[in-house]
Amino acid sequence: MAQTGVIIVAGGSGRRMGASLPKQFMMLGNTPILVRTINRMRESLPAAEIVVVLPEEHIALWHNLSARFEVAAHRVVAGGKERFHSVAAGLAALSDEVRYIAVHDGVRPLVSKKLIIRLILEAEQHQVVIPVIAPADSCRIIEGESSITIDRSTLRFVQTPQVFHAEVLRKAYEQPFSTAFTDDASVAEAAGYAVHLCEGERQNIKITTPDDITLAEAIIATRDEEI
Amino acid sequence: MAQTGVIIVAGGSGRRMGASLPKQFMMLGNTPILVRTINRMRESLPAAEIVVVLPEEHIALWHNLSARFEVAAHRVVAGGKERFHSVAAGLAALSDEVRYIAVHDGVRPLVSKKLIIRLILEAEQHQVVIPVIAPADSCRIIEGESSITIDRSTLRFVQTPQVFHAEVLRKAYEQPFSTAFTDDASVAEAAGYAVHLCEGERQNIKITTPDDITLAEAIIATRDEEI
Repeated sequence: MAQTGVIIVAGGSGRRMGASLPKQFMMLGNTPILVRTINRMRESLPAAEIVVVLPEEHIALWHNLSARFEVAAHRVVAGGKERFHSVAAGLAALSDEVRYIAVHDGVRPLVSKKLIIRLILEAEQHQVVIPVIAPADSCRIIEGESSITIDRSTLRFVQTPQVFHAEVLRKAYEQPFSTAFTDDASVAEAAGYAVHLCEGERQNIKITTPDDITLAEAIIATRDEEI
Repeated sequence: MAQTGVIIVAGGSGRRMGASLPKQFMMLGNTPILVRTINRMRESLPAAEIVVVLPEEHIALWHNLSARFEVAAHRVVAGGKERFHSVAAGLAALSDEVRYIAVHDGVRPLVSKKLIIRLILEAEQHQVVIPVIAPADSCRIIEGESSITIDRSTLRFVQTPQVFHAEVLRKAYEQPFSTAFTDDASVAEAAGYAVHLCEGERQNIKITTPDDITLAEAIIATRDEEI
């Protein structure tokens, strides 16, 4: 497998958690979420360059916390105002050797090794590959004061890791920031690149609320992993 | 509170569960899902008429299963080919006394009493009231071979119970069946009624996969309920 770079974006402030500790630093079982995410990436891609992007003000906290756990080798860089700026900072820290770059949310520790590898392999054929899942419920779109039913069979939720050819991601991040960028694939798309969808995993949840922690612990329990 | 009717639709065949037992009959802790759903409705609306709509071929199984548990009073009617026909069958079984009708999925046992009552109270002001939640992930819409990013801030997932003025639901179900009906609100909407959205609950999940059972058990555990 060609040299791969991984950018783990861990910029959230944790406001939605109702806790002062940013969510990526919270414990899932006996291990902080971000430690789990980094280790999962390392297990899946043993030779990858891994860069973790943290808000400047959380870097000291991270060093303090991570020293108490077994964390796979990674570099830490300071992020920016928006996710866009944080990914750009991560990108600048990767070497010119990397051919594929996976951008992953720091708060998605449950992604499987199988999905990570599948996405990287798909990237041999496609410039941008992202994991998506179909919604289980009916959906509506709000339009002003009212709302309309939409056909959920065409709707997909976007997960991470999102995998890019390195030159595609570098080119995409030369664009000026736009609030229309909802994820990294949308940045590449704005630069004219096609996005290839792959089947994601329902268990690859983004941990943003206390309920998500409960769910994540239940998922880990069913996997017979040590939590 | 005015007289209320409840139609619990339990028509799924369980194909998605990878099990021969339809999902509404599966155990959640020590109690079948459908028993939990019926009892939650009864606790919330003690005087309601409750009609459970089951596929004809599952009615004997249900009588056999439910005899072994404490199940609140309810009537059972046979459903039809599509959800639309099942709701119509449930509607025909409700008395003319009911003023509001709540239509609920048999596989959503975790809805709170608080949400059920709030929806019924909102129905005093609105003809159709449905619970919705905002998505946590970025979303895309598939268009032919490709897909586009959509603004998730306007997107909502639709849950149940969906509450209707009785005459509105009866009028709506006089329409011929259409494959465009994705839920009961969309049937009322097609008949010209406005749909009012209320904040739903993230924990009010629809149990359709084995993972959902795991999640539901975890949610129950955090609520300190007996499972």
